[in-house]
Amino acid sequence: MLNLSINHIDGTVDACPFDNKMHIRLRMQKGLAKSVKLVYNCDKNLWFKSRDSAQMELTQVDSELEYYNVFVPLTDTRFAYIFELECNDGIKRYFSEEGLSEQYDHNYAYMNFFQYTSQFTCDIVNVPEWVKTAVCYQIFPERFFVGKSDKNTDYITAKWGEIPTPTSFHGGDLTGVCEKLDYLEDLGVNLIYMTPIFCSPSNHKYDITDYENVDSAFGGNEALKKLVDNAHIRGIKIMLDGVFNHCSWENPIFIDAQKNGKNSKYYDWFFWNEDGTYRTFGSVKYMPKLNTGNSQVMEYFSKVAVKWMKEYNVDGWRLDVSDEISHKFLRRFREAVTEQNPDAIIIGEDWHRPARYLNGDEYDGTMNYPLTKACLDLLAFKTIDSVTFRDRLVKLYNTYNIATNYKMLNLLGTHDTDRFLSRVDGDGNRLRTAMAIMFFYPGIPCVYYADEIGTEGGYDPDCRRCFDWNKENWDIESYNLIKELMKLKKEPALSYGCFDITENGGMVTITRSCKEQTVALKINATENIKSGIAPFGFEIIK
Amino acid sequence: MLNLSINHIDGTVDACPFDNKMHIRLRMQKGLAKSVKLVYNCDKNLWFKSRDSAQMELTQVDSELEYYNVFVPLTDTRFAYIFELECNDGIKRYFSEEGLSEQYDHNYAYMNFFQYTSQFTCDIVNVPEWVKTAVCYQIFPERFFVGKSDKNTDYITAKWGEIPTPTSFHGGDLTGVCEKLDYLEDLGVNLIYMTPIFCSPSNHKYDITDYENVDSAFGGNEALKKLVDNAHIRGIKIMLDGVFNHCSWENPIFIDAQKNGKNSKYYDWFFWNEDGTYRTFGSVKYMPKLNTGNSQVMEYFSKVAVKWMKEYNVDGWRLDVSDEISHKFLRRFREAVTEQNPDAIIIGEDWHRPARYLNGDEYDGTMNYPLTKACLDLLAFKTIDSVTFRDRLVKLYNTYNIATNYKMLNLLGTHDTDRFLSRVDGDGNRLRTAMAIMFFYPGIPCVYYADEIGTEGGYDPDCRRCFDWNKENWDIESYNLIKELMKLKKEPALSYGCFDITENGGMVTITRSCKEQTVALKINATENIKSGIAPFGFEIIK
Repeated sequence: MLNLSINHIDGTVDACPFDNKMHIRLRMQKGLAKSVKLVYNCDKNLWFKSRDSAQMELTQVDSELEYYNVFVPLTDTRFAYIFELECNDGIKRYFSEEGLSEQYDHNYAYMNFFQYTSQFTCDIVNVPEWVKTAVCYQIFPERFFVGKSDKNTDYITAKWGEIPTPTSFHGGDLTGVCEKLDYLEDLGVNLIYMTPIFCSPSNHKYDITDYENVDSAFGGNEALKKLVDNAHIRGIKIMLDGVFNHCSWENPIFIDAQKNGKNSKYYDWFFWNEDGTYRTFGSVKYMPKLNTGNSQVMEYFSKVAVKWMKEYNVDGWRLDVSDEISHKFLRRFREAVTEQNPDAIIIGEDWHRPARYLNGDEYDGTMNYPLTKACLDLLAFKTIDSVTFRDRLVKLYNTYNIATNYKMLNLLGTHDTDRFLSRVDGDGNRLRTAMAIMFFYPGIPCVYYADEIGTEGGYDPDCRRCFDWNKENWDIESYNLIKELMKLKKEPALSYGCFDITENGGMVTITRSCKEQTVALKINATENIKSGIAPFGFEIIK
Repeated sequence: MLNLSINHIDGTVDACPFDNKMHIRLRMQKGLAKSVKLVYNCDKNLWFKSRDSAQMELTQVDSELEYYNVFVPLTDTRFAYIFELECNDGIKRYFSEEGLSEQYDHNYAYMNFFQYTSQFTCDIVNVPEWVKTAVCYQIFPERFFVGKSDKNTDYITAKWGEIPTPTSFHGGDLTGVCEKLDYLEDLGVNLIYMTPIFCSPSNHKYDITDYENVDSAFGGNEALKKLVDNAHIRGIKIMLDGVFNHCSWENPIFIDAQKNGKNSKYYDWFFWNEDGTYRTFGSVKYMPKLNTGNSQVMEYFSKVAVKWMKEYNVDGWRLDVSDEISHKFLRRFREAVTEQNPDAIIIGEDWHRPARYLNGDEYDGTMNYPLTKACLDLLAFKTIDSVTFRDRLVKLYNTYNIATNYKMLNLLGTHDTDRFLSRVDGDGNRLRTAMAIMFFYPGIPCVYYADEIGTEGGYDPDCRRCFDWNKENWDIESYNLIKELMKLKKEPALSYGCFDITENGGMVTITRSCKEQTVALKINATENIKSGIAPFGFEIIK
């Protein structure tokens, strides 16, 4: 009985219906087998009569493991399978739920084959077509652009371009975003993710006082309507930030609960301590934590989400602090959102590797911070070498099922981190290498506003500087690269091509290929020039 | 980067809140480390300030792996952790989401510690107290006992005790079960699982025509009412068989759909082929498959389940062919059932290792056929030795989270298999050894009716013989053992004690221990007498 030298995470990560085929993955210690076959029957009840078989392909290798993959036709929902290995010791072995064995008794196969039987449409992890070519751009609306409007500007405390403080207001708004749609369209953006826009006293608006209205400082509901409509005309989708883990202590719901205690119908929407204090997001007193295990809370926020989708045609949600929201909430929320629009996307803010949330019933993907961290470790902190970088990406990719990988939101930085350029000491070369990696790794690349023009910035609030619209200050090399990458991302290889990554003497190569196209990214992960590529530089090979 | 030599399945199987503590499991290749600590903070936001640590205990070993376990207090819902290993090569290593490393930078821990943050009551996998001491008895009502009643007996086609045919009726009913409650109580049973009882033309009643009434041959609704009431007086719970994957082709719902096609409101409750045929359970034409991906179907059967719980006080459901039912159905069904009674139990009929269904939102446990198979392979087919048997049980146990293991329904046979005694050629010694294993393995032991008196029987219909109430024919040694095991199961060690299993020279020892009690089962897994134990015999050590 070998166990960890061979592994198949059935039911979720390593078995997944995908584009009307069944994807199966097997992970094995290097050198165990020279050839692997999938033996299967689409209808498990017919196993005893006959089985099909398909050669599996070795598509990824890391320092310890080999990952074999295969797609087979799916004609029934009662898919059953085992693996047949030609091992390097000359022995043929079978791998089933019972482990590795040299014999396999088909008469008892029904007791130990792997199976993936429940494949109802409502359970399947889909990748909406538009997601495959999606290129995202994250906007912090207070700092992107001030549009022309007659809004009350008394709240503005700082000039455009002044270094932001935690509480400064510079006047950016949705009208501003709308006026810059030409810029975004020209850059190649087709999905905008905006940090929160609903009524809130802060500049970041993560403490919401009214979920049913857009903040007047951002132009109110009409500005959103206009923005979405104009974006859609250009083929650009809009993803909003759903802050449902907590609200503002100025939210009437919280005020009612705090004032009236158990007599308030909102009392159970929060978590009260015996001394009258309450649970918060982190230790931020002005952000009381919502009880997302409460059915009314689930109901309310599902309705809020549907309202914005139905009346304003919003295309998706990024869920703030999603890893502290109940699974039950997330499942109900998904049902409501996908009932309104099956093509909508839900991205969790989860800095970890939450495979449990990604079986198709909670989020579609997460903000892919583990990818960010691998890029930081390689290019900024220089704590890992090319081999470990390759290993990290292979392991990250194989953490999720194949469909989920296409729905991860890849990023180099956000309003919650230092800007990548500042992490690499302002070295545009290393920023650009990271940018290329982010576009070549499967998923939705997401450029944090102004990264494309070479803006620097440390931790919050410095990473939330005003966009500098004076072209003379732009890093045109980065800008041009992003534009090129956004174009390339919409071609077949980067949209839906297979992912492979190899390492050789300090050079890392990411290859994306499909039958129409193959493109490769070569990364020099060393301090020396290699194959004509600068230290920590890259080359795109088409 | 090592990967498969160390593994932690976070979020589900290897991390689970349990009895107000957090259970964490780490699986490692044998000999990697001499000591393992869990480094954690119940509030991940405070990680940067300080961490607690707890020594992990090596509780199970198989041929390749060591399983370390620890329980730590749970004071917040934002639990974060990493592992610290004293490796056998003298190097201290850390294991986080990024893999094994020799250094660990706490400043970036928030990007790579493991976490289990969402712990709402509605998400937690509970083990109801009664489940810990539950001892189940499976009854096929048509063959257990004919009670005194004035029911119409015209349907009876065979005498009690005649060898059953696929279609024979022998007259057993719920009144009969009720009259034998004294027998069951005396034996030690406190949970009865009955195969289907609702209106159906067959003797097995898996083809249901009316889900809202008990079949008149079984005594109708009143007989169920009386049975449940009388069982509850004795502290015996009743679990019904929910056949929601398919119904009878005589069910008015199906007839309506077939007759009226798309004009029927039930049309989408089934799967229609273009030629007018329909999908079935297996290839059984009289069992049309229900579309459990349809919301109305989910709604209807959830209501059916709640009705029987509310009006008849039924305590739980065994779900027939649960692995072919949609996840969405299973989640909604669970919500409805646990809203009606948070202590109700749902057992899936899943012959495999469906960890995905066992995160607390679908079933509680499954019919534990992989345990059956290990017992068969060791004692009946003799295809595995003591080491592989030990390995199988260790791996099976570690397939699930700790809470789920206590909710698996352990069995040696059912109405769907040959009886275990016939599998071991009528050898009562090997049957008794298997019985002892079934009671010592964590979970709910389930005795198939008449196994306790040494009834033989091949595959269906032979495994559905009439219970022989003539005591002279009973295997008293088996009967007494079952009675002893049922008593022992209610003591602390077998109720909630830790599970360990070791192997030594052909002897396998299962130990269950808690602070109040330790009991052990020694199994001689060889053909020779060993330590005074007969070949394939056992000894219980208290």
